[in-house]
Amino acid sequence: MPVQHKLDGIYSPVLTPFKADLSPDLDAFIFHCGWLLDSGVGLAVFGTNSEANSLSVAERRMLLDALLEAGLPAVRMMPGTGCCSLSDTVELTRHATLAGVGGVLMLPPFYYKGVSEDGLFRHYAEVIERVADDRLRIYLYHIPPVAQVPITFGLIERLLKAYPSAIAGIKDSSGDWGNTEGMLREFQPVGFDVFAGSELFLLRTLRGGGAGCITATGNVNPAPMVALFKSWRDADADRQQAALDVTRAAFQKFPLIAAMKAAVAEYGGMPSLGTVRPPLVGLEPHDKQALLASLTTLRLRMPGFERLHDALAGSHVGHT
Amino acid sequence: MPVQHKLDGIYSPVLTPFKADLSPDLDAFIFHCGWLLDSGVGLAVFGTNSEANSLSVAERRMLLDALLEAGLPAVRMMPGTGCCSLSDTVELTRHATLAGVGGVLMLPPFYYKGVSEDGLFRHYAEVIERVADDRLRIYLYHIPPVAQVPITFGLIERLLKAYPSAIAGIKDSSGDWGNTEGMLREFQPVGFDVFAGSELFLLRTLRGGGAGCITATGNVNPAPMVALFKSWRDADADRQQAALDVTRAAFQKFPLIAAMKAAVAEYGGMPSLGTVRPPLVGLEPHDKQALLASLTTLRLRMPGFERLHDALAGSHVGHT
Repeated sequence: MPVQHKLDGIYSPVLTPFKADLSPDLDAFIFHCGWLLDSGVGLAVFGTNSEANSLSVAERRMLLDALLEAGLPAVRMMPGTGCCSLSDTVELTRHATLAGVGGVLMLPPFYYKGVSEDGLFRHYAEVIERVADDRLRIYLYHIPPVAQVPITFGLIERLLKAYPSAIAGIKDSSGDWGNTEGMLREFQPVGFDVFAGSELFLLRTLRGGGAGCITATGNVNPAPMVALFKSWRDADADRQQAALDVTRAAFQKFPLIAAMKAAVAEYGGMPSLGTVRPPLVGLEPHDKQALLASLTTLRLRMPGFERLHDALAGSHVGHT
Repeated sequence: MPVQHKLDGIYSPVLTPFKADLSPDLDAFIFHCGWLLDSGVGLAVFGTNSEANSLSVAERRMLLDALLEAGLPAVRMMPGTGCCSLSDTVELTRHATLAGVGGVLMLPPFYYKGVSEDGLFRHYAEVIERVADDRLRIYLYHIPPVAQVPITFGLIERLLKAYPSAIAGIKDSSGDWGNTEGMLREFQPVGFDVFAGSELFLLRTLRGGGAGCITATGNVNPAPMVALFKSWRDADADRQQAALDVTRAAFQKFPLIAAMKAAVAEYGGMPSLGTVRPPLVGLEPHDKQALLASLTTLRLRMPGFERLHDALAGSHVGHT
């Protein structure tokens, strides 16, 4: 019997476009989200690659509200709501859940290091109890290379036992296939949906019964990922996966967020969209040149993205 | 000629007392701050050991306002204002600077790892330019074991060159005396005030021309630290330092924040003050018993702290 997932497919931590003054560019953000939806990709807004941790709580609320006002469907959104602080996490999670999002992607509190499983359990439990909404669906966010605070199997087990409805799944950004495989084996059978943290593991995750992937480069290469998700049982699935890997590698040669923003700026004809917030820095000109050259060689396409430039000429970009 | 410091002495990251529902206990916080000031200790509120990173931006603003309304002197405060996000950091720094604090203690943005010196420079520069207040005095906060994002010598040099007035000094919580010594040698002579991150390095820091220390255990053992700061040229300074080390070690046998909160709860006669916010957890009963036994053996005293219990019986605790 095929595995039923609550949410599945390809999600992308949507890049957050900034103006020259580093304020979020709302219209460009709405355009990019609409383009991703049209490409079949769900909106994991406010992820690591969205520079969400460089946004304030107020900015994240405002950006989510802007997407909703533009008519984008909340059910296709999985906003990141995990902050260092319990109170901030509760505020963002409640706001997103009330808006009717498909789920939220929740980092563990990541400032204090070496914290106990018990403390992390208590944190997630407090969030769930305080939000107190049956619609809450939490996707845990395991990204030890950045957060440095891991989501262990023991923690998942305790959370699933205490909150089987609210704990919906995980994004595994450990970069360690053995870990993803273990989660697929241990937890996917009880309906805990495992998303790979990168398309590099997409095919293996789907073959293991997982739900899909939530991946940075979904921002720039969505269609081939969605195609593989739809046809992963086909004979050419391995070939498709290999092609995804090649494009990913072209971006990963550079600091990933800056590289994706450089590509978006180029394909959208809006040089300003290369802007990143500190502490990140934009691509050096020679790196940008090298990246764009390799994307040309790879024939990367972002069909329709060139309309960004025209769309921004209007006063407001809606999703039509 | 003796070194002139802008601020000096002993500062403590004031413990943030929580009620059973995990909300900040304002009256207990104000009492504790007043007690520290009476002990000669400055208020580095919202530090790592204040669980500040488990507080929201709104909570930090509210707590600072409560201290000011209670009549505590802003000039004796050095609030922590460094967040992951540029916008949050600017908001807290502006608020504190407008209030007239002696300085702010500023973590680097700590979510993204492996960021460049250039990106960190740009972050601090943006904060300074946006706050745009001549009164701004930033103490950089170097705590690589927790933040994982270091303040390098190269970064200090660039910042000092660009913002000689705003960049006032550093708290070095590397735990590496060699690093503190290097900073004292390189930067203290140009008026960049070096505070040790723990009283374990207090005497060595003062002998090296530094400004003092900003230390967690100032919360529970302030008077002997202040005494050493005042008499460090005396013959018995090494003996005093050794006594400080013994008390510190008694606390460090346990998770430090939970241990200090257990001591404060005991000496203040308010068991609820042992409460910590997740992801931290309180001391286990047997650890608490062992800690309190060792404090009795060491004859640790917190003179006047027992008045906390009576003070909280009144509706509002002011600083008189």
